[in-house]
Amino acid sequence: MNGAQALLRTLVAAGVDTCFANPGTSEMHFVAGLDEVPGLRAIPALAEGVATGAADGYARIAGKPAATLLHCGPGLANGLANLHNARRAGVPVLNLIGDQAHHHRPLDPPLAADTEALAKTVSAWTRTSLDACAVAPDAASAVAAARAGGGRIASLVLPSDVCWDEGAQVAAPQPVPPRAGVPDDRLAHAAACALEGEGTLLLLGQDALHGPGLALAARIAERTGARLLAGATVARMARGDGTPRIGRMPYAPEPATRLLAGVRRLLLVGARRPVFAFAGPDGHQRPEPPGLHVALVAAPEEDVVCALGRLAERLGCAATVDAPRRERPSPAAGDVSPQAFARSLGALLPPGAIVVDEGVSFGRAVFDGTLDAAAHDWLQLTGGAIGMGLPVATGAAVAGAGRRVVVLQADGSALYNVQALWTQARERLDVTTVIFSNRRYAILHDEMRRVRATAGPAASALFSLGQPDIRWDQLANGFGVASGVAATMDQFNALFERSMATAGPFLIELAVP
Amino acid sequence: MNGAQALLRTLVAAGVDTCFANPGTSEMHFVAGLDEVPGLRAIPALAEGVATGAADGYARIAGKPAATLLHCGPGLANGLANLHNARRAGVPVLNLIGDQAHHHRPLDPPLAADTEALAKTVSAWTRTSLDACAVAPDAASAVAAARAGGGRIASLVLPSDVCWDEGAQVAAPQPVPPRAGVPDDRLAHAAACALEGEGTLLLLGQDALHGPGLALAARIAERTGARLLAGATVARMARGDGTPRIGRMPYAPEPATRLLAGVRRLLLVGARRPVFAFAGPDGHQRPEPPGLHVALVAAPEEDVVCALGRLAERLGCAATVDAPRRERPSPAAGDVSPQAFARSLGALLPPGAIVVDEGVSFGRAVFDGTLDAAAHDWLQLTGGAIGMGLPVATGAAVAGAGRRVVVLQADGSALYNVQALWTQARERLDVTTVIFSNRRYAILHDEMRRVRATAGPAASALFSLGQPDIRWDQLANGFGVASGVAATMDQFNALFERSMATAGPFLIELAVP
Repeated sequence: MNGAQALLRTLVAAGVDTCFANPGTSEMHFVAGLDEVPGLRAIPALAEGVATGAADGYARIAGKPAATLLHCGPGLANGLANLHNARRAGVPVLNLIGDQAHHHRPLDPPLAADTEALAKTVSAWTRTSLDACAVAPDAASAVAAARAGGGRIASLVLPSDVCWDEGAQVAAPQPVPPRAGVPDDRLAHAAACALEGEGTLLLLGQDALHGPGLALAARIAERTGARLLAGATVARMARGDGTPRIGRMPYAPEPATRLLAGVRRLLLVGARRPVFAFAGPDGHQRPEPPGLHVALVAAPEEDVVCALGRLAERLGCAATVDAPRRERPSPAAGDVSPQAFARSLGALLPPGAIVVDEGVSFGRAVFDGTLDAAAHDWLQLTGGAIGMGLPVATGAAVAGAGRRVVVLQADGSALYNVQALWTQARERLDVTTVIFSNRRYAILHDEMRRVRATAGPAASALFSLGQPDIRWDQLANGFGVASGVAATMDQFNALFERSMATAGPFLIELAVP
Repeated sequence: MNGAQALLRTLVAAGVDTCFANPGTSEMHFVAGLDEVPGLRAIPALAEGVATGAADGYARIAGKPAATLLHCGPGLANGLANLHNARRAGVPVLNLIGDQAHHHRPLDPPLAADTEALAKTVSAWTRTSLDACAVAPDAASAVAAARAGGGRIASLVLPSDVCWDEGAQVAAPQPVPPRAGVPDDRLAHAAACALEGEGTLLLLGQDALHGPGLALAARIAERTGARLLAGATVARMARGDGTPRIGRMPYAPEPATRLLAGVRRLLLVGARRPVFAFAGPDGHQRPEPPGLHVALVAAPEEDVVCALGRLAERLGCAATVDAPRRERPSPAAGDVSPQAFARSLGALLPPGAIVVDEGVSFGRAVFDGTLDAAAHDWLQLTGGAIGMGLPVATGAAVAGAGRRVVVLQADGSALYNVQALWTQARERLDVTTVIFSNRRYAILHDEMRRVRATAGPAASALFSLGQPDIRWDQLANGFGVASGVAATMDQFNALFERSMATAGPFLIELAVP
């Protein structure tokens, strides 16, 4: 058995059954192994950012790692931005990165690059396999490392000789280290704070935003009167029918600061302490009011669900609470606005949908405006590296196996990894992409104002996506995805309903102000 | 004056007048400065790989650095692959990379990443500016560092506070360190080898492939009978009318080995010692025959032209040699093949054109088949990181100011940075892109055979760009570029001639076998 075959069998044994691949010359034996070893579905990506973003989306829904297959050095580099987002999402991803054969690298062939250095910028675990006998045990270690702490990036570099050499053996799966528990004194303090009621805010992240974690948080809020809020960047959140009605920390400094103004105690439950994405010349860095008491309950990588369970027990919470009754809105008609869009989406979203949110400036109001939709999961840009929407949707659709995925996608951000549309067409994935087409980097106009600088003609030209306008319907068709254009909410509603009733991907270019 | 304004004025004073930009929030004061400081043309890119590849193409034609403007961490990461290529091309590039304000980074905001570590993987010079007073002198140092040794990658990281803080001053340009000279004993040895005649091969790279360097190489060959050959990856080579008729080291191991079989002495003149892009299980790594004598005349970063001048003088070469007379071919008709395509291109290429070659497998025969074209420059993928063709063409067209750029572009590779088409449309650049559309990663089928592995159904699916087919005409239109489709050489000839007669970008999808 060669190294590649042992590697593949080891991955399958460890539960890795999906690989988002953009292979190159140094990965040929791995690719050949896909035909020799059953159990691993390989999905092609036209660019590496698609593969890594898809692995992120897959992990958020499947709760386990997919593999990526990336080409050495520069190929990995192309995928780093979405690995950065995956790292911030706290999901497991296993990168398999081809590289020069050990004996060839010293000759400095054209593609030689510092693959390990690149991998380490996003990975909690990085290793280069030394030989064909090491590669299977390395893979088993990598899978366990990816699953530790709820989810991390593990990168295994594969010099091509470790894949083609013979004499390798399959390695057994390795145990995943248990998530760190939370000490009692933190829970005692959290309970005391929660019992103060409305002036206490539980800021939720990671496993506190779906499944049993979210249910526990709702019971605690019901018992104590403490408020619940999701952190500003949501890796996966269960919303709509059957869930508590919870808002989200705003992205922009001013509304975030306003929202926290009346809060006296902030408890971090799987969420990080709020920080603005960027500092400004005004000196503001956090939205916290003076005198706010901030206390950690559970860090994102700790056992958040267990901590919430112990807290609920300590507080004597009721065994269940009823989710609030929802009044489904009716679709909006007429002019396009964030509020009108949110209303239509809330009305038309099918039960069990997955919403991927890279809506950036136009999309900000959509989160709060869709609280009364059917039950769905919400996946959002977590690391600020734009270009995740289409790839994450692709991976989420693979993991969701039949669940409809709806992407809320700003036009500027969509252009970084627009190639994902082709993978959606190739795999016939049920993804509906809504492009918010305002033909500019609108967020940069906002930021320019915020840092008290002025956008003159040169700056405005850099922020413009016009002259010529991007024709999204044609781009989608070029990648094999059917499309439509909407300029009013009525037109949007009709296209969206048609897409919900039709298998396969669809793209709606929505002209937004 | 704030740091951004001082930085911009320093760049303009140092001769940097073009910036390929994909800005983000942390670069707002730099962008505002573009309206306050005249002399720097900012050109927008929809993705960072477009900006960095354009800077590569610009430098190859302009012979001086453009700046890139990139967003922190992940934004830079997206641009690394084409910086890898630029590094291998030996061209000057100045990266300006926004980053978190100094005081904000410790709070680990979402986009915080190890920007310096990423930059160092491709850069000969990397620095993070400490404050507004440092940024202008840092910029002057960066430009000089980029121009050293003929061309290097210099990366200046700009925490946003160094741009918005006041009290900065413009810095004077810094002297560029002279290129290292070549010791006499190397030239004496080279002269002795050259005088052995036909069994000696001068392998040419960098400045030996255009301008006075190429003329000197031709005089040496004429005097001694030694043969001339270009290295396998050509950053910029002057070809066609008025130049010597010189082939290129093949990419694939077998033809490269055959070509060197009769050579006894290999002299490296601005070229690196030949090495295969990848090792294979057969153990081959270099194309050299047993007993080949390899001698360095001038390394790529040394003063190649001066070394050739001294060598020519030592050999008593004639002051000039006549370039060979060219017989211009007539365009090919009928079926599409690499040879037929080369003939049409050789016939129809206008004088002064710039050819950008990312033709990969179909394109390999085009180089030798166009030796008798009108005078033109040939720019090629240098570092093996695919996705350079469209971006490099964009930058070359900016630097070429009216010269027609023709891109020979494999379809798989084109998809990595296809967004470059929009910049070509926005800037109304005279770029004609020919997509070699075989709807597969053909090179990977070749490599699979070469490493003695087999492509079964799963592997073949990963190498296929079909199901659905990419519609290149629609992708081009979506980015605002006019397009046409050709399935025969006659159709190609007509579209190509029309494009040569029409200002602005055009894309031809050529169906190839």
